[in-house]
Amino acid sequence: MSDIDPLANVRIVLTEPSHPGNIGAAARAMKTMGLSSLHLVAPQRFPDPEAEWRAARAADVLADARVHDSLEDALRGTALAVACSRRMREMAVPAVSAREAAARLIAAARTQPVAVVFGNETYGLTTEEVNKCGLIATIPANPDYPSLNLGAAVQVLAYELHMAVRADAEGPAPRALAPHEDVESFYAHLESLLMESGFFDPQHPKKLMPRVRRLFARAGLEREEVNILRGILKALSRSRE
Amino acid sequence: MSDIDPLANVRIVLTEPSHPGNIGAAARAMKTMGLSSLHLVAPQRFPDPEAEWRAARAADVLADARVHDSLEDALRGTALAVACSRRMREMAVPAVSAREAAARLIAAARTQPVAVVFGNETYGLTTEEVNKCGLIATIPANPDYPSLNLGAAVQVLAYELHMAVRADAEGPAPRALAPHEDVESFYAHLESLLMESGFFDPQHPKKLMPRVRRLFARAGLEREEVNILRGILKALSRSRE
Repeated sequence: MSDIDPLANVRIVLTEPSHPGNIGAAARAMKTMGLSSLHLVAPQRFPDPEAEWRAARAADVLADARVHDSLEDALRGTALAVACSRRMREMAVPAVSAREAAARLIAAARTQPVAVVFGNETYGLTTEEVNKCGLIATIPANPDYPSLNLGAAVQVLAYELHMAVRADAEGPAPRALAPHEDVESFYAHLESLLMESGFFDPQHPKKLMPRVRRLFARAGLEREEVNILRGILKALSRSRE
Repeated sequence: MSDIDPLANVRIVLTEPSHPGNIGAAARAMKTMGLSSLHLVAPQRFPDPEAEWRAARAADVLADARVHDSLEDALRGTALAVACSRRMREMAVPAVSAREAAARLIAAARTQPVAVVFGNETYGLTTEEVNKCGLIATIPANPDYPSLNLGAAVQVLAYELHMAVRADAEGPAPRALAPHEDVESFYAHLESLLMESGFFDPQHPKKLMPRVRRLFARAGLEREEVNILRGILKALSRSRE
C-alpha cells in the first residue's frame, strides 16, 4: 500500500452546471468527504456569490476549481472516468451501482488520476459524454422519482468514495489463505478416513463432501488452519492404528 | 417477511431547522429514496416558498409534513429513534456508522415506526435531544471539515436506508444457524477426542481450541452442518473402539 491519499487523485467533474448554488453545494459535499479536485466544464455562471455562500467553509475547493471548455479537456490524464447517470440507455458502457463504482475508482486512484462526471441539472449527460467514460455509476433510487439534486448526487458519490477508502484502511488485515492444493489434500485425507470408517460410502455419497466443502469454503481456510485440521485428522487416525 | 414497505415506517425528524431551503432539500432527498414521512419540530419558517422550490417534485412530502412543538411529540409511537450527530460527547447512547444504523432501522421498521433525528443547521442536536434516542448515527467524514449541509446529511441517511432495504430484498436467504448449545456440544466432543488421542494436552493448550472455534464461527455453522461434523467425529471414534 502506498502513502498516497487516493481521494487526492479523484476529480469531480460537473459538465455545464446551470446553478452556481449547486457548484457551491458540490464543493461542500466534496470537502466533507476529503475530496478537493473540482473541474467545471463550461459552467453557466462561475465564479458567483451564490456558489461561495453554498460552499460554506469549502471556499478553498471553489478557489482551486479548474474551468474547461470541453469534457475531453477535463478528463485528460485520467485512467478511469465514471459517468454518474440514472438513464440506462442502450450504451456500450457498463453500468454498476455507486458503491461498486466507488470501490473501482479508489482501487485505480491509488496510483492514477480518476474522475466522476456529473451532467447538467436538467438534461443530465449526453450519450456522447457518457461514451467518453469507462463506466456508468447509478445511484439506486425511487423509480418514481430518482431525480437527486446535483449537490446531493455529488454528496452520495463522495460519501461512497470516502467509505471505500475506509473499508480499505480499516478493514480486517488480509488473511493468508491456504493454497488450493493444501485444502484439496485436507479434503482427500478426510474423505479417505471417512471411507475407512464406513461413514462415507462412495456408492451413496449423499452430498456429504460437497456440504463439507461448502462449510470450509465459506470460512476461507488459512494456511495454519489447514495444518490444524490435518493434525486433528492424523491424531484421530493414529490412535486407531 | 411481511409485505409492509419498511421505508413507509421511517420518519425523518428535523428539529428547529432555520432555513426553509433545507427543509425542501430534505423532502426531495427523502422522496428520491422512497421515504415520505417528514416531521418538523418548531421550524423557524414553514411553510415557505423556498422550501417548495428546493423540494422540486417532492411537494407532496412537504404538504404531508407534520409540525410538532417538541421532539418528544415527534417521536411518539416509534420503537427506535436514531440521532444523526457527528459530535461524540460523553453520552450513554451508543454510536454506530450511518450504514450500521440504517440496517438496524430497517430491521425494526419492518414491524414498527422508527425515526431518524437531525439537529439545527448551526448547533446540531442538544445532549438532551440525543438522550431521547436509542442510538447515534455518525456519517464518516473528513475530520477537518465534517460539516455536511442538512439536506446532504438527510440524503446520505435516506440513501443508506434505501440501500439497506435493497440488501435485505436482494441478499441471500437467511441461513438457519445451529443453536448455541449444539455448537458447544460439538466443540466439547472434539476436545475430548483430541485429549484421548494425545493431540490436545490441556496442560499445554496452545490456543488449539480457540483457533478451531474461530474457524467455525467465521463460517457460521448451520444446524445440518453441526450434525455432519458430529457424525464425522462419531464415525472416527467408533472405528477406534
